[in-house]
Amino acid sequence: MSSERADRGAAYMATLDPGLEGALRKGMAPIAPDFADMMVEFGYGEMMSRPGLDPKSRQFVTLGILAGLGHPVDQLKGHINGALSVGITPKEIVEALMQVAIYAGFPAATNALRVAKRVFAERGVSPLPSSGEN
Amino acid sequence: MSSERADRGAAYMATLDPGLEGALRKGMAPIAPDFADMMVEFGYGEMMSRPGLDPKSRQFVTLGILAGLGHPVDQLKGHINGALSVGITPKEIVEALMQVAIYAGFPAATNALRVAKRVFAERGVSPLPSSGEN
Amino acid sequence: MSSERADRGAAYMATLDPGLEGALRKGMAPIAPDFADMMVEFGYGEMMSRPGLDPKSRQFVTLGILAGLGHPVDQLKGHINGALSVGITPKEIVEALMQVAIYAGFPAATNALRVAKRVFAERGVSPLPSSGEN
Amino acid sequence: MSSERADRGAAYMATLDPGLEGALRKGMAPIAPDFADMMVEFGYGEMMSRPGLDPKSRQFVTLGILAGLGHPVDQLKGHINGALSVGITPKEIVEALMQVAIYAGFPAATNALRVAKRVFAERGVSPLPSSGEN
Amino acid sequence: MSSERADRGAAYMATLDPGLEGALRKGMAPIAPDFADMMVEFGYGEMMSRPGLDPKSRQFVTLGILAGLGHPVDQLKGHINGALSVGITPKEIVEALMQVAIYAGFPAATNALRVAKRVFAERGVSPLPSSGEN
Amino acid sequence: MSSERADRGAAYMATLDPGLEGALRKGMAPIAPDFADMMVEFGYGEMMSRPGLDPKSRQFVTLGILAGLGHPVDQLKGHINGALSVGITPKEIVEALMQVAIYAGFPAATNALRVAKRVFAERGVSPLPSSGEN
Repeated sequence: MSSERADRGAAYMATLDPGLEGALRKGMAPIAPDFADMMVEFGYGEMMSRPGLDPKSRQFVTLGILAGLGHPVDQLKGHINGALSVGITPKEIVEALMQVAIYAGFPAATNALRVAKRVFAERGVSPLPSSGEN
Repeated sequence: MSSERADRGAAYMATLDPGLEGALRKGMAPIAPDFADMMVEFGYGEMMSRPGLDPKSRQFVTLGILAGLGHPVDQLKGHINGALSVGITPKEIVEALMQVAIYAGFPAATNALRVAKRVFAERGVSPLPSSGEN
Repeated sequence: MSSERADRGAAYMATLDPGLEGALRKGMAPIAPDFADMMVEFGYGEMMSRPGLDPKSRQFVTLGILAGLGHPVDQLKGHINGALSVGITPKEIVEALMQVAIYAGFPAATNALRVAKRVFAERGVSPLPSSGEN
Repeated sequence: MSSERADRGAAYMATLDPGLEGALRKGMAPIAPDFADMMVEFGYGEMMSRPGLDPKSRQFVTLGILAGLGHPVDQLKGHINGALSVGITPKEIVEALMQVAIYAGFPAATNALRVAKRVFAERGVSPLPSSGEN
Repeated sequence: MSSERADRGAAYMATLDPGLEGALRKGMAPIAPDFADMMVEFGYGEMMSRPGLDPKSRQFVTLGILAGLGHPVDQLKGHINGALSVGITPKEIVEALMQVAIYAGFPAATNALRVAKRVFAERGVSPLPSSGEN
Repeated sequence: MSSERADRGAAYMATLDPGLEGALRKGMAPIAPDFADMMVEFGYGEMMSRPGLDPKSRQFVTLGILAGLGHPVDQLKGHINGALSVGITPKEIVEALMQVAIYAGFPAATNALRVAKRVFAERGVSPLPSSGEN
């Protein structure tokens, strides 16, 4: 019945991370499989995949919200990864997260940058010039 | 001594709103003029004007942080205005703020959209097709 | 296509406040009518109207979230009103909001109680014994 | 002097978890034993044990506050456990926490559901039908 | 029964603002008089009046919490007033609130400084050198 | 060019923890060395080292913000350590963090006290009388 939404959501999720939908569904299976459906169908299928805003801009908004709130660390990690996947550069991610210091304080920015550091290490990318100072 | 930072900050602020620096300095004059200096010199002159991220993307991050936190209403209003000034369309702003519902809840998104409605009315713009809303 | 969800959402909203859906749609009409659809169809039609939890308990959860976050004042007002509509007594609402002090601090509880005072006055109800307060 | 409050608080805590008071007092003993007293005497003895709201409803409010705030993970874990103890079913807890997505965003709800998953596993209960779909 | 706590709380409140207890009790009378009792007896009588920390330091902690959270505007206003009453200078208050920018962002600090500006105006004090502001 | 700010910031940081600047620079080196500069030069060199407020009072404000927000756990740990370094006693720190319960809820206070317990253990200090009751 809701397969169109689900397909569109799954497709959007795959652009962020091919394993995202599977991990979400697996994590929620023993407790709230309907919640995973909602994430896929509504979160990604109805909202994030709307045509009025490009995926890069959506990721910048998402990074801002998650880093500003501070507590959703796993989601921030996932969306830093997703930001890389939609073509945002490591340097742009770092700039976005540094900027969090102005609007939500240095601790929120610092902790977000630490999360980014872990994601970058896992993906083997760096925001620094290749000659790699420091 | 810090005139280069101040000039760069003032120039960046002017791209968001020609009256922004003046309003900030006037508001802080009777209580904390140094704080206005910090906003101009550090906030805008050192951080926001860094070349590594374009102004549109910075505004998307800022909208995300402010709408997600929920309480900084005046700053959200100012940065929705600034988003329009750097070329983000009303429709893109609406999409960005709708998306806040996913990551910070519908109330945060609803209240942010209401602020946008006021800014759009003041500037005489609309996110809806010209043939009319709904 | 989504009429079943929309109908179920509208019906649930009506149990909280007969004017809620209309006010939501009117407020969002000039800026984000799709967002109103999402609230009705997803928020109320898919989530809040799920059969696994009774409406009173859902309102208690909602009061806790909104009062704890502190910034969504209009939504808290609406859901205090909705709590009365689904049969929660004024006294129970007061008890729930007082309890917010333990988990989110006295200021959050105080401000929520002030909102409740306004709602109770509008509806002509009181949490105190009829012989009078204090 | 405050033994009546302390007794009432201890009794209420025991209904949530027989080991709760002991764990609290042990944890605070080397640093702030008075703080443990306040939790028992004021938090539970004066506030939570008030007769005007039943323990189930109090737990729903508490789950809403803690899941909405996002950062008090240990307390959320404790109160999910307490919710089970006062007779809220695993399925009702899941419904309550899913609903957090509407008012505080999907990340807050997701993280709360993950905490519930751990509590359910520890207590050997499940919110799903026993045939265990998904 | 609890008169010692109540007296101690009332005395502490009076050092912050002679009208504080009365305003609190009056505001809560029609809805939650017990909550006012708790504020006086527990909040001020048991916690704030503890001898282990001087009133000035307690006000600095309180200003940090309230300004950092951002949403409790009325309470921040009250405690800026209370800070003046216990001998913190307008300039020290401004410094404390400016510092909020580092740990919770410039918007939180800006909004707190605006509240301070109103309190200072009401009390006829200024944080600036008497020869005048910048 | 900014060496005066940097020197002043580094000197202030050293009063909190001789290893603080080095740890910050090392942590940010692979991802955002400019961000470490900003922390040293602006955060500590321009803001925290301002003469208008003594270091103890600044630490009380900082403890309030960080404990109230709840999510910046590492920063809270660092600033509890810094509080000890500028001469705030373990007992005063405990009092300040207990007080967080009034303004931001018991969970925020409890978690902050747990962080303090770890810092005190690492530094071999205690807030309790040496005979160690409780």
